[in-house]
Amino acid sequence: MTTPWTQRYAQRTQRMGSSMIRELLKMTEQPDLISFAGGLPAPELFPVAEFEAAAQRVLKQHGSKALQYSTTEGYLPLREFIVEKMSHYGIQATPENVLITSGSQQALDLIGKLLINSGDLILTENPTYLGALQAWRAYQAEFTAVPIDDNGIQVDLLEEALCGGPKFMYILPNFQNPGGVTLSYDRRQALVALADRYGVPIIEDDPYGELRFEGNHLPPLVVLDAEKLNDDARAAGNGHNGDEAGFFRGNVIYLSTFSKTLAPGLRLGWMVAPKSVIKRCVQAKQGMDLHTSSFVQMVAHETIKGDFLPRHVRRIRQVYKERRDVMIGTMLRQFPPGIIWTWPEGGLFLWVTLPEWLDAAAILPKAIEKKVAFVPGAAFYPDGTGHNHFRLNFSNAQPDQIEEGIKRLGRVLAQELEKTAELAYA
Amino acid sequence: MTTPWTQRYAQRTQRMGSSMIRELLKMTEQPDLISFAGGLPAPELFPVAEFEAAAQRVLKQHGSKALQYSTTEGYLPLREFIVEKMSHYGIQATPENVLITSGSQQALDLIGKLLINSGDLILTENPTYLGALQAWRAYQAEFTAVPIDDNGIQVDLLEEALCGGPKFMYILPNFQNPGGVTLSYDRRQALVALADRYGVPIIEDDPYGELRFEGNHLPPLVVLDAEKLNDDARAAGNGHNGDEAGFFRGNVIYLSTFSKTLAPGLRLGWMVAPKSVIKRCVQAKQGMDLHTSSFVQMVAHETIKGDFLPRHVRRIRQVYKERRDVMIGTMLRQFPPGIIWTWPEGGLFLWVTLPEWLDAAAILPKAIEKKVAFVPGAAFYPDGTGHNHFRLNFSNAQPDQIEEGIKRLGRVLAQELEKTAELAYA
Repeated sequence: MTTPWTQRYAQRTQRMGSSMIRELLKMTEQPDLISFAGGLPAPELFPVAEFEAAAQRVLKQHGSKALQYSTTEGYLPLREFIVEKMSHYGIQATPENVLITSGSQQALDLIGKLLINSGDLILTENPTYLGALQAWRAYQAEFTAVPIDDNGIQVDLLEEALCGGPKFMYILPNFQNPGGVTLSYDRRQALVALADRYGVPIIEDDPYGELRFEGNHLPPLVVLDAEKLNDDARAAGNGHNGDEAGFFRGNVIYLSTFSKTLAPGLRLGWMVAPKSVIKRCVQAKQGMDLHTSSFVQMVAHETIKGDFLPRHVRRIRQVYKERRDVMIGTMLRQFPPGIIWTWPEGGLFLWVTLPEWLDAAAILPKAIEKKVAFVPGAAFYPDGTGHNHFRLNFSNAQPDQIEEGIKRLGRVLAQELEKTAELAYA
Repeated sequence: MTTPWTQRYAQRTQRMGSSMIRELLKMTEQPDLISFAGGLPAPELFPVAEFEAAAQRVLKQHGSKALQYSTTEGYLPLREFIVEKMSHYGIQATPENVLITSGSQQALDLIGKLLINSGDLILTENPTYLGALQAWRAYQAEFTAVPIDDNGIQVDLLEEALCGGPKFMYILPNFQNPGGVTLSYDRRQALVALADRYGVPIIEDDPYGELRFEGNHLPPLVVLDAEKLNDDARAAGNGHNGDEAGFFRGNVIYLSTFSKTLAPGLRLGWMVAPKSVIKRCVQAKQGMDLHTSSFVQMVAHETIKGDFLPRHVRRIRQVYKERRDVMIGTMLRQFPPGIIWTWPEGGLFLWVTLPEWLDAAAILPKAIEKKVAFVPGAAFYPDGTGHNHFRLNFSNAQPDQIEEGIKRLGRVLAQELEKTAELAYA
């Protein structure tokens, strides 16, 4: 059926088609299906009682303010909290470097609005976060994608892509979505140096960085970039100068969120950038939603102020680590040989690689029939490859469900492998 | 100071410059200044206690759900509530016609993303809502603006603008921002007929429609359009057909919000459109913020369900009517002759017209000096005219403050008029 609107859609919407996978995944809402498809945090860990108390305090003490229009930049005490929190990771920001966004997804949309002209090339990891592709396709971006391995983006393959003149690079350094892999320290250094050499800035998306189960935290790209900038300035005989005090004049915009450490239903994320960039983003955000809910910002701040958040994050790490261990342990026992996967040191996801001749999207309906689901990999690949991969989420299901779901999936995969083996010998 | 980002801003951001007016209006935050500049609802009317109780119930009963990711379309019980509420105004929608947005500002951004190609012409009222211009300039829209008078957009001047081939028309039919005027019934009929004849759809933005102090509610354009469509179909011998059942197949997308009837700090609005349009908007919104805060949606629904909202809106109408009356009464006594203004039957704003030779933007600094503020008119005029107008908000100040502020403003205006009179006779 056509409407007067049908003929009027903008060119950019031509690539926003609805996907078969999305339709299939709607079937995962069946109650007896075990879904590893979503990217959902464990709801039983949400600090519901703390939120309740915080909402009460905020409304009793600052009700009018919490319900009124507020500034686009975001609630100042929350920005101050974020600044303090990030300083533990070496990020030296001021509240003027921070913009509160309606989830990090909005930060991705803002970046698209701020930076992308139709036809601009964006360099991403291959595979990369689907939501970024979705946000930037709406600005008619094109993508050039550099493969990842167990140590993150393959920096030795980066120069060729950089020669294509991308507008910026999009990097998820920690427990990447969907890959589950972490960019090694050496590669971080190399990446920052290459960004500087080619004059291609970096969008560093770090939703999962705090959810590290083991091993050492690695410095964010934004920190390495600032250190490099300062070293270069010292080498050239210049000290700090300008109002950015040596930090946040650099090549990196850093994004993070409260979705994985607190609750995604708040839609609360943030962007850290040079002041001049934040100013532009504030102007753009005004036209997008005026500001992020003041009520949500104030309740979130009231919930996490003091030392609640680090304690809460420790608990999340513990639970997710156990679930990852159960998932990998069961995969080791139940998956047929010939299938490999990543071993994430944190985050929510791991990434499965099937033999080249299998197609994860074709296996999904069979898995759903056996009441288990995953996300096939192809959608995460800007270059259209990735048919033999899929993503598993381990944060949202209980350990016994994970065990049962992986068993079911193991049987489906074993059958697929047998079938193709029979064909091979037929 | 330049950063690696400075050279990389997209073309669309070239028109997002920071404005002198915005900087001036920052000065209105002085505590002893009486500001009629903002568009803020009266915070003392926010239902703080009801929110507190609602937040508590939502978190106790559905805490995990309220804090988890949810669907992009929005919380179904809230969409059902909106459908029921709109049916009192003749709007026959189903929940599938409704998309929850992060304030109506996001609906404007969504419409830009969905419909506007660079260089597309948008037909607006002259003056019109600044936020719409801001949202659509980011998509590099051009504007053609048709003047308003006391009965809204001058429909007899519309055909020429329609011949320019605008992508859509943007109309605020009730207590327009900034004009305060309401589109008459006859003009509504004529507008809908012209939209149909020229094949130019309408975005109907109705944030204030429920805040009518006196006179009769007029049918929304979306209702008149549906009636026309059904009449035409009957005349042609066709009954209803298709899954849209005769409604919402038409020329109008309808927008509204809880910002003026409940609380703007929630950032909660909605869009009503044909299902096929909603489906596209859902895809676009996924890339923009995934969904509007589930916590906010559930708390808002818990607050307003039952018969709370109509009672609450009656109270707002009463208070705002009194404030409008105090403002206009004081203007009649205190403003010098030669100045006229609109008499809004509802909403938050009235609109002042100075003699042609005065410039409201030049008067603003003098008003701020005397501790009173307004918004100069030019920014609301897509065609760059409007220098001798300004907007007054009457919802946010107490009656005694309104009286005092208008007295101060009257003195400033009298001085300006005297000065120019002296110049004229010099």
